[in-house]
Amino acid sequence: MCNKMRKIQLFVLLILGVCNVSFAQNILTLEDAILGSRTKFAPKSLNQLQWQGEMNKFTFVKNSTLFQGNVENDSIVSLLHISDLNIALINYDSITLKRFPKILWKNSEQLEYVENNNLFIYNISTGLFDVIINYPEGADNIDVCEANNMLAYTIGNNLFININGELIKVTDEDNPGIISGQTVHRNEFGITGGTFWSPEGKFLAYYRKDETMVADYPLVDISGRIAILENIKYPMAGMKSEEVTLWIYNIEKGTKTMIQTGEPKEQYLTNIAWSPDEKYIYIAVLNRGQDHMKLNQYDANSGDLVNTLFEETNSRYVEPLHAIEFMKNDEKKFIWQSNRDGYNHLYLYDTNGKLLNQLTQGEFDVTENMGTDKEGKFLYFISTQPDPIERQLYKLDLETHEVIRLTINKGIHNAVISQTGEYIIDTYSNISEPRIINLLSVEGNVIRNLITADNPYQNYKLGEITLSSVKCSDGKTDLDYRLIRPVDFDPSNKYPVIIYVYGGPHSQLVTNRWLGGSRMWQHYMAQKGFIGFTMDNRGTLGHGFDFESCIHRQLGKLEMEDQMKGVEFLKSLPYVDTSRIGIHGWSYGGFMTVYLKLHYPEIFKVAVAGGPVIDWKYYEVMYGERYMDTPQENPDGYEQANMKNYVDNLKGELLIIQGTMDPVVVWQNSLTFVQECVDRKKQIDYFIYPGHPHNVRGVDRVHLMRKVSEYFIDNL
Amino acid sequence: MCNKMRKIQLFVLLILGVCNVSFAQNILTLEDAILGSRTKFAPKSLNQLQWQGEMNKFTFVKNSTLFQGNVENDSIVSLLHISDLNIALINYDSITLKRFPKILWKNSEQLEYVENNNLFIYNISTGLFDVIINYPEGADNIDVCEANNMLAYTIGNNLFININGELIKVTDEDNPGIISGQTVHRNEFGITGGTFWSPEGKFLAYYRKDETMVADYPLVDISGRIAILENIKYPMAGMKSEEVTLWIYNIEKGTKTMIQTGEPKEQYLTNIAWSPDEKYIYIAVLNRGQDHMKLNQYDANSGDLVNTLFEETNSRYVEPLHAIEFMKNDEKKFIWQSNRDGYNHLYLYDTNGKLLNQLTQGEFDVTENMGTDKEGKFLYFISTQPDPIERQLYKLDLETHEVIRLTINKGIHNAVISQTGEYIIDTYSNISEPRIINLLSVEGNVIRNLITADNPYQNYKLGEITLSSVKCSDGKTDLDYRLIRPVDFDPSNKYPVIIYVYGGPHSQLVTNRWLGGSRMWQHYMAQKGFIGFTMDNRGTLGHGFDFESCIHRQLGKLEMEDQMKGVEFLKSLPYVDTSRIGIHGWSYGGFMTVYLKLHYPEIFKVAVAGGPVIDWKYYEVMYGERYMDTPQENPDGYEQANMKNYVDNLKGELLIIQGTMDPVVVWQNSLTFVQECVDRKKQIDYFIYPGHPHNVRGVDRVHLMRKVSEYFIDNL
Repeated sequence: MCNKMRKIQLFVLLILGVCNVSFAQNILTLEDAILGSRTKFAPKSLNQLQWQGEMNKFTFVKNSTLFQGNVENDSIVSLLHISDLNIALINYDSITLKRFPKILWKNSEQLEYVENNNLFIYNISTGLFDVIINYPEGADNIDVCEANNMLAYTIGNNLFININGELIKVTDEDNPGIISGQTVHRNEFGITGGTFWSPEGKFLAYYRKDETMVADYPLVDISGRIAILENIKYPMAGMKSEEVTLWIYNIEKGTKTMIQTGEPKEQYLTNIAWSPDEKYIYIAVLNRGQDHMKLNQYDANSGDLVNTLFEETNSRYVEPLHAIEFMKNDEKKFIWQSNRDGYNHLYLYDTNGKLLNQLTQGEFDVTENMGTDKEGKFLYFISTQPDPIERQLYKLDLETHEVIRLTINKGIHNAVISQTGEYIIDTYSNISEPRIINLLSVEGNVIRNLITADNPYQNYKLGEITLSSVKCSDGKTDLDYRLIRPVDFDPSNKYPVIIYVYGGPHSQLVTNRWLGGSRMWQHYMAQKGFIGFTMDNRGTLGHGFDFESCIHRQLGKLEMEDQMKGVEFLKSLPYVDTSRIGIHGWSYGGFMTVYLKLHYPEIFKVAVAGGPVIDWKYYEVMYGERYMDTPQENPDGYEQANMKNYVDNLKGELLIIQGTMDPVVVWQNSLTFVQECVDRKKQIDYFIYPGHPHNVRGVDRVHLMRKVSEYFIDNL
Repeated sequence: MCNKMRKIQLFVLLILGVCNVSFAQNILTLEDAILGSRTKFAPKSLNQLQWQGEMNKFTFVKNSTLFQGNVENDSIVSLLHISDLNIALINYDSITLKRFPKILWKNSEQLEYVENNNLFIYNISTGLFDVIINYPEGADNIDVCEANNMLAYTIGNNLFININGELIKVTDEDNPGIISGQTVHRNEFGITGGTFWSPEGKFLAYYRKDETMVADYPLVDISGRIAILENIKYPMAGMKSEEVTLWIYNIEKGTKTMIQTGEPKEQYLTNIAWSPDEKYIYIAVLNRGQDHMKLNQYDANSGDLVNTLFEETNSRYVEPLHAIEFMKNDEKKFIWQSNRDGYNHLYLYDTNGKLLNQLTQGEFDVTENMGTDKEGKFLYFISTQPDPIERQLYKLDLETHEVIRLTINKGIHNAVISQTGEYIIDTYSNISEPRIINLLSVEGNVIRNLITADNPYQNYKLGEITLSSVKCSDGKTDLDYRLIRPVDFDPSNKYPVIIYVYGGPHSQLVTNRWLGGSRMWQHYMAQKGFIGFTMDNRGTLGHGFDFESCIHRQLGKLEMEDQMKGVEFLKSLPYVDTSRIGIHGWSYGGFMTVYLKLHYPEIFKVAVAGGPVIDWKYYEVMYGERYMDTPQENPDGYEQANMKNYVDNLKGELLIIQGTMDPVVVWQNSLTFVQECVDRKKQIDYFIYPGHPHNVRGVDRVHLMRKVSEYFIDNL
């Protein structure tokens, strides 16, 4: 671990004091805190900032104009106004744009956007639309083939293609439980869609999901004249799961071929990739047990298995998240991401499955492979080196294997390499800098600063934020925490603490981004006199595979051990009122909240858990079985993680909140928990958000957080 | 009204002080208060007290023995021990009785009971079973024909008859939405069952309910491995309702005949009665609008309408609750109950529909017609005369029309006349007498006291109870209230008040029964220092039709006016802390609670509403449309009664509680209310009882009332 000596403190008050003493007295309203961070308090930025095709020029949208910047000089010119688009649209029976659309440069001249059920391709040189393709109302999962502008989309459970106006019904399935062209496996394993155009657009690969055999979970929609049932298919851990196959539609022949992924039918077909020559399709085939993956190559015409390039196994789990990426300069080589050595790294393979090189190594995770330049000389990636709470950009020389760090300033960097391979747009923030956008050379030199955002809270009183770490119960690992002191902090006072927790896989709450990643609600509560504390326990992201996966088959246990190290630290602080510690979390954080409250009722006086997993047997197969195996395979693990077994410990205040249409952590979790509390004669508080899914979003979130805030204010 | 000068005060403390000074310090636990009143605090009684057929002897069960008492002397003899039944059962393959069964004397020698899927008829003279008839597992709605011991029962949605062991499948309907032999119209209009044996058992009349066209309301059962849907058919006000017909099964011929009740199909077939000669069946046919009833006579063989004997209409509603009862000495005459003159009275008709006499009249309601003696000379009834909070027994001379009051002592009397017409068992209680059972002569003279129960709370501190009345906002009507002072009352203190309210039709909370009808939870809260107050507003029972029906089309409005008269009275009391008034109610009382809280948020600091009707359009057709007409007919009335229109007024604490399987006031009510609160940015508290129907019963009720109690204790 590289963060042993880290301690970052942002004396926000001090900085604000310098900036504007007279106004730094403003107090956040709850509306500010909940709704403001993406609106009135959003740091200044450049909207839709991107490279213009293969040019060394970038564009961004301001008001209703697309501006173009030139890397070689300071010039910013207006490239396109919304009215230009509207004038060009006059000949088409399309609705006038009211705001500038979300565009994507296809190349230096053509920009693409989707509006009002049309795909538009506008040519900046001619001022005309090269392509307008309409798709019907109700179409969803629009997937544009970049090579030939064909459109794939779904209507209901069926898949369609629009080839220059000609409509093809790829599937024609009456049974609503058989779904084509949509995402599968509940979006786990990096899956985000269900269609995959081949590079030249000769084929469309698509998922076909048969969930007819999956149990229905009944949700009830109360918004109509009389409440109605809305079943969802919800495969619960250990129960019958969906059966997915991958099919290939041949555009020219109009034929469909099923890829021969074979038995057992309950397996995961993940990380689909086409070979550049369109002859093969690659699938990371993972068994339902999620401990054995095969990278399989299939013939795109016959559907037959050609080769298993390699396999990965792990006694805990294998979790392929990234499809193979072919080298731009060599169609026989590709990059594979794997944490097989304990950290997520890049591996260079050839298409025979031979490992050529491990491209990156060390005690850090590659978090993003940005690909190579056209010549395939350099590969760019972002990683957790040198500090897991940061993200820095690196360049790898594929010949010499030399790695050069391109971004220097501390923080979370996000980079976009120009297609020319000559420039980089580097956007970052850190605990004290809201947003900086720089233009870099590929050597990492700052050519020009495009944005340095002011602190949007400069006129507001915020509590001081500290990022640091405590030692884990294993004595070696560092656990990152963020501590927010109350506004007008007086070290001789004693303050109550609210721990905000998530703690589940794939998450990292404590990072060196703007305000340390803190939620503005925590600052709202800091204004009310509460210390805000958050710590990332084992099981979370950014510290390698062992750190994340050690929770396998025993969810809650090690996470709690770690959180209690955080509590130990809090208790060591002279200004903490140790009799007034509260905890709040949602989803996995709801599970953690209940787990902690019931194991340490003397410590956690008040707890508020949202959408909590109560019993992992009610959770779904894909995520649940990765971490817990099935209830049949791991009965003890399920029992130790079952909150209903600890209800007798309940003391003090516990409020559970859930959306009544939660399709993720189904309501059965908290309802059976309340029932157990009633059975065990334990009082508990409960609240629901009618019609809301797993998270309460939008304006209702203010109501939610007022409920949560008042619960702590009244009881802690 | 006769209760103008009434004021009853029970100085419980004083009485207890005399009884047992040293022990009168005990305090009720919540378990005592909620579960104890029918167990450890149940006043002494005689179990299964009844007349033994046509004898002047009565029987009751004590421990495992049936005792026989003789009216002519003091003797009590043991008649039958459970072991006698068990010995007689040895020859039958039936399970041994562990406790004395619930028996019914068929005549002086035969007693009938149902156990372990058998109908038993035991002969006390022979010590043998005259009849044992088995019926299958899963059978329900068992209906024994007293004339010939045939058994009708339902399995699933079908109806069966067992004739001396021979099984007849009366209906054979696959569609679960078509149900025969079960209760219909949601048990309104006095309906309690779906089968009607003709007097001699030649016919079985039965309801056939077609609810295939009624909307499903989705309930969700979370108790299994995965939550499952449990649809109920729930016809909401103004929506499509069920279609009911009455059929007659001819035992001898095995034929079925539909009674020609005709169109419209959405009508109510209520108060089924057979003519003594089995030739005719009578139905009080009520239109869906519930303002026009026809008493129709049908031919039992052909099903044809013979005659409409008479009709009743009312601009508010007509609510037939009692089937016609034929005179024992004249099969051409029957008694009809109607509140057509403003109070519920008895009318004598002949079978041509000619009104012969109004048998009772005056400003009181007949609450029970006990029928006549064999000779048809005297008719016995119970009424609200002379005081609506009491029930007294009267005897009417059918020749002279003279009415004689038979019970003298104040209170709620319940009487059983012997079949000989010579004696009466009179059971009563009043505010200070827990239970008295007397044997009376038909002249009302007390022959013998059988039970005088001690005060079961004699060792407990209870608050003083007052029964009295305040003037209604109309300036004339008296509104009965019950006030419970806190334990250790000190008139110089100021006490908070909790109003317990119901306030809906068919209810009467304030009566001169034991402890004034108070719930022991109110006494529990009186021990905690809260005044308990309850008042019966207009819309409730016992004060005639106008008093009850004036709420028509405007539920909540007049009820609230009246309740505010109660609040006015409370405010006039020097020992009431007027800033601390809370209110609690369930069902209609939940509706009242929310209605009052939202109209007088300054008055009602804390409110707890259980299973509340929020919007009457979500309530069912039968009850809802009687009082509100349909939403189409009465849009303004529905709007004024819709709690969601008053959410902006919400201030202070409001807790709503509901069972998650509530099939009566469906969950949509409180869920949409919470949604409205969220939409209107109002905070509210909420709790649910998973798996519970409309009321939380059993041991979980302690949890519920602890939740309610703590809410008042913490917030009021």
